[in-house]
Amino acid sequence: MPKEEINNLALRRALFYPAAEIYPDSPSGFWEFADAGEKIRRKIVDLWRKELVEKEGFIEIFGAQVLPEAVFRASGHLESFSDPIVQCKKCNSLHRADSLIAEKTGKVVPESLAATELDKLIKKHSVECPKCKSKDFHETKKFNMMMKVDIGATGNQVSYLRPETCQSIFLDFKRIYRTIANSLPLGIAQAGSSFRNEIAPRNTLLRQREFGQMEIEVFFNPHRISEIENFAEVENFKLNLLLSKEKAVKKISCREAAEKKIVSGKLIAYYLARVQQFYSKLNIPEEKMRFRQLGEDERAFYAAETWDFEVETDLGWVELMACNYRADYDLKGHAKQSKQEMIVTDNNEKVLPHVFELSAGIDRAFYVALDLAFRKEKRGPEERIFLDLPIRIAPYIAGVFPLVKKDGLLEKGLEIFRQLNSYDFDVLFEEKASIGKRYAKIDEIGVPFAITVDYDSLKDNTVTLRERSSMQQKRVKIDSLAEALWHLKTGKKSFEQI
Amino acid sequence: MPKEEINNLALRRALFYPAAEIYPDSPSGFWEFADAGEKIRRKIVDLWRKELVEKEGFIEIFGAQVLPEAVFRASGHLESFSDPIVQCKKCNSLHRADSLIAEKTGKVVPESLAATELDKLIKKHSVECPKCKSKDFHETKKFNMMMKVDIGATGNQVSYLRPETCQSIFLDFKRIYRTIANSLPLGIAQAGSSFRNEIAPRNTLLRQREFGQMEIEVFFNPHRISEIENFAEVENFKLNLLLSKEKAVKKISCREAAEKKIVSGKLIAYYLARVQQFYSKLNIPEEKMRFRQLGEDERAFYAAETWDFEVETDLGWVELMACNYRADYDLKGHAKQSKQEMIVTDNNEKVLPHVFELSAGIDRAFYVALDLAFRKEKRGPEERIFLDLPIRIAPYIAGVFPLVKKDGLLEKGLEIFRQLNSYDFDVLFEEKASIGKRYAKIDEIGVPFAITVDYDSLKDNTVTLRERSSMQQKRVKIDSLAEALWHLKTGKKSFEQI
Repeated sequence: MPKEEINNLALRRALFYPAAEIYPDSPSGFWEFADAGEKIRRKIVDLWRKELVEKEGFIEIFGAQVLPEAVFRASGHLESFSDPIVQCKKCNSLHRADSLIAEKTGKVVPESLAATELDKLIKKHSVECPKCKSKDFHETKKFNMMMKVDIGATGNQVSYLRPETCQSIFLDFKRIYRTIANSLPLGIAQAGSSFRNEIAPRNTLLRQREFGQMEIEVFFNPHRISEIENFAEVENFKLNLLLSKEKAVKKISCREAAEKKIVSGKLIAYYLARVQQFYSKLNIPEEKMRFRQLGEDERAFYAAETWDFEVETDLGWVELMACNYRADYDLKGHAKQSKQEMIVTDNNEKVLPHVFELSAGIDRAFYVALDLAFRKEKRGPEERIFLDLPIRIAPYIAGVFPLVKKDGLLEKGLEIFRQLNSYDFDVLFEEKASIGKRYAKIDEIGVPFAITVDYDSLKDNTVTLRERSSMQQKRVKIDSLAEALWHLKTGKKSFEQI
Repeated sequence: MPKEEINNLALRRALFYPAAEIYPDSPSGFWEFADAGEKIRRKIVDLWRKELVEKEGFIEIFGAQVLPEAVFRASGHLESFSDPIVQCKKCNSLHRADSLIAEKTGKVVPESLAATELDKLIKKHSVECPKCKSKDFHETKKFNMMMKVDIGATGNQVSYLRPETCQSIFLDFKRIYRTIANSLPLGIAQAGSSFRNEIAPRNTLLRQREFGQMEIEVFFNPHRISEIENFAEVENFKLNLLLSKEKAVKKISCREAAEKKIVSGKLIAYYLARVQQFYSKLNIPEEKMRFRQLGEDERAFYAAETWDFEVETDLGWVELMACNYRADYDLKGHAKQSKQEMIVTDNNEKVLPHVFELSAGIDRAFYVALDLAFRKEKRGPEERIFLDLPIRIAPYIAGVFPLVKKDGLLEKGLEIFRQLNSYDFDVLFEEKASIGKRYAKIDEIGVPFAITVDYDSLKDNTVTLRERSSMQQKRVKIDSLAEALWHLKTGKKSFEQI
C-alpha cells in the first residue's frame, strides 16, 4: 500500500506518531506507539518468541541498554561503526557521502571505502547537494553513530547506548553456558531497543534513531556446522534464495543448499528455513519474500556469510532480518579484551564457538505487516478500510459491543468482557457510537472478531460473532465463546468450524 | 529471605546478574536477566497489564526513551531532578549529603533543602565520611541525575534518557484523547526502562541506574474527583493505610476513606483498592503491605498527595508503587512550554485534566516476589529450595520430562512439549540429568508443574503431573493436559480439581 495511506491510518488511529510531537523542534527518528499500535508491535515480538525462540529451546535474556566503552572497543564499534558524512560548503547541510554517490550512479557503494576514496567519487561523478545543488563539499568525515552517555557523578565512566541488542548476548554467553546450558548448540535471544545516531532518519519506522530489534545468536561447534538435530523436518523445505551473482530468486531445498555448499552447512540451512516459516506466519506471501545473498563488498565488518531476508513492499524490497555467519569474531574479541576464557568443551573437543546470527527489526516487521494487511474495498457508495492481520498479531482478538446501553445490554456486554478477560484474552469493550462506527474502528485496527450483544442475547444466551475480513456472521452460545476464541487463536479451528 | 540467599540463587540460575560482568570495571547499577529471570520479570508486567490496564479500559503506549531537552524543561526535571552530592576532602569519595545526615540523625531530610542548609546540618551533627571517617567535606552541590545524549551529526539536539516513563504519556495525551478516547477519565499506561545516574546504586535490583517502571496516569475532571464508575465494587474493600501522623496501619474501607476526606476523593480510593488487589495477586500477604501517606516534606516536587505502597521484606519496607495526585502540574507545564492547548470538554465543561498517577517499579516487584516466594525445606538429610511463585508470574507453567531417553519416551515427551507449545503455553523440555535433578531445577526457578513421561505413558496415554509446592502427584490423560493447564493458569480450577 502507498506509504501515505499507511501514515494516515497510523496518525488517525494513533498506531504510531512522532515522539514529543507537541514540540516541533524535536529530533526526528523517534516514534511512539499507542493502543492497537503498541499491541500489534508487542505481538510480533511474542510470535517471534514463540516460533523462533521457545520452539527451538533457546534462552531469552533482558539486558542493560547502557553498556561501558570496553564492550564496544572489543566489538569493533568504537573503531568501525561509522557513517561517512559530507557537508555542503554553500548551505551547510549534512549528507551521507555513500548515499549521494549511490543515488547519482545507481550503484551500491561498498561500506569499506575510505573517506578519501569517497571524496574522489564525489568529484568524479559531479555529485550535487540535494538541498541547494552546489557541487562544493567539505571533506568527508567518518561519524560514529553510537550515542554516548556519561555515567557516575564525575561522568568518568564513559558508556554508550547499545547500537545492537546482541552485544549483551556475547557478554552473557559464559554465565548462561555455565549455569543453564552446558552444551552446544546454544541459542541466546534478546528483543529490545537499539540506538543509532542516524544522520538522515526517513520512511517513518524503516530508518529510526531508536528502534526495536529481536536478535538470536546461535553458538555452535564450527566442526559440526553440518550437524543439526531436526534437519529432517526441513530438508525438503524450499528456500527463496537470490544468489549474489544472479538476478532471479531460485527455490532451493535445504538439502540441496547444504549439499551444494550454497550455505556453509546444514545448520545454516535449517535456521534459514525456520526464518522463512516464521515470516509466513505474518502472512507475507511467498512470492514477496527472498533471502538475498550479500557479496563481500556489502557485508558488515564482522560477517563471513550474510543472507538478508527481504520483503517486497510499496517502498521496494525491505530488509527484515540479517542472517549473519559471524564465525568467532565476537567471542574472540571479548575474550581478548576481557581476558576471560570463552572456550568450551563440545563432543570431547575444546572449541571457541562460532555464531550464526538472526538479527531482525521489530518496527520494520510492524510496518511491513501493515503494508501487506491494508485493504480498501468499495462497498456500494461506501469505502471500507480494514487490516487483514493474522490473528496472532491482531491487537485484540475481539471487540465486545452491546447493541444499545439500555435494557440490561450494557451489563450483559460487560459480563462477557470480564469473562473473556479472565481467560486471558485481549478484548476491547466499547459501548459508545453506532454499531457501524464501532465495526469500522476495529476493522481499521485489524481486530478479527466482533461480539455483538443484542436483545436475543438476553433470551437465549447467544451473541453474534462477526469475522472482520469476510464480514460473515454467526450466532454463538455465550458459554462456548471462550473455548471458540481459544481454538481460533491457536489455529485449531477456523471460523467455519466454530 | 536474607538477601544473600536471593543473590546466590539469582547468580546460580542466572535469574539476574551484573551487566557486562566480564569487564570488572563496568559501572554498577546495571543488571541482566536470563531465562527464568527474564520470564518472571516479563510476566509481572503482563499481570499489571491484565489487572490494572486492560480491566480498567486504559490505553497502553510504547514511547521513545530518548526525549528532547524541551520536555524536561517543561517537566521541571532540568531544574529540580537532582541529588545533593558532597565530596570528602580527605579521600575524595562522593556521597549523598541527605543520606549521610539521615543516617547520623535517624531522621528523614526533606528533599527541598538547599545545598547550604545541608552543609549547615553536616557541620551541626558532625557528620563523618563513611569511608575514611574525616569530617572535612567540600561544599554540597546539586547533581542532576538525568543522562544526557547528544543527537544529530553536530550533536546540537540535546536530549536525555527519560528519568521516568510517564513523560511520554503527558506528551501523547492530546493525540490519544483526540483519536481514541474523547472522554474523561482517561487512563494511559506505559511499561519500560528509565534511567537515573544514581551516585550510589545498591541492593541489586532495588536501586539501579537503568530500571523498569510501569506507570499509569489517570486524567480526570478535577470537579469530578468524587465520581467513579465502579466505586460500588470497592466501597467496602479495606485499604491498609499508614497515615502520615500515625504509627500503625489502619484498615479503612474505601467509602470511609473518601467520606472522611482521608483521600481527596472516591476516584483516589478506587484506584488504591485496585492497586492493593493487584499486589495480592503477587502473593504479598495482607499484613506485609501498606500505603504510607507521605508528609509534605517527603513528597516529590510535583505531588499534592502521595501514598507509597510498601511491602515488608528482609531489607525492611520496600516501596513498590508511588500513588501521586499530580493535579495539573504536568499538562500545565507542557501546555506552557509547547504553546499547545491541553484543555478538553467534559460534562459540558472546559477543564485542564488533573492526574492521578500509579508509578510502579518492575524490578522491585520482581525482587520482592522472589523474597516472598523463597522456601528452604529440610527433607530428611536433604534440603529443598523452591520458589512458591503464583502461577501467573511463574517463568514456565510446566516442565516436560521423559523419564529416560530411550524406548520412545523422548519422542513422546517431545510430542507433548510441541502440543502444549502450540496451545501457547510456556513449557520447558528437558531430557538430560536425573529426574530428581530436573525437579530440583524447576523448583528453584518456580515452575509450578512437572509433567513426567514414563513407560505407562506409552501404554495408557497418561502422564504424572507433579505440583511444585505440595509435591503431590497425580496421573492425567495426555489428551486433557492442555485444558487442565488452561484451567490452572486462569485460576478456574485448583490442582485438586484436575
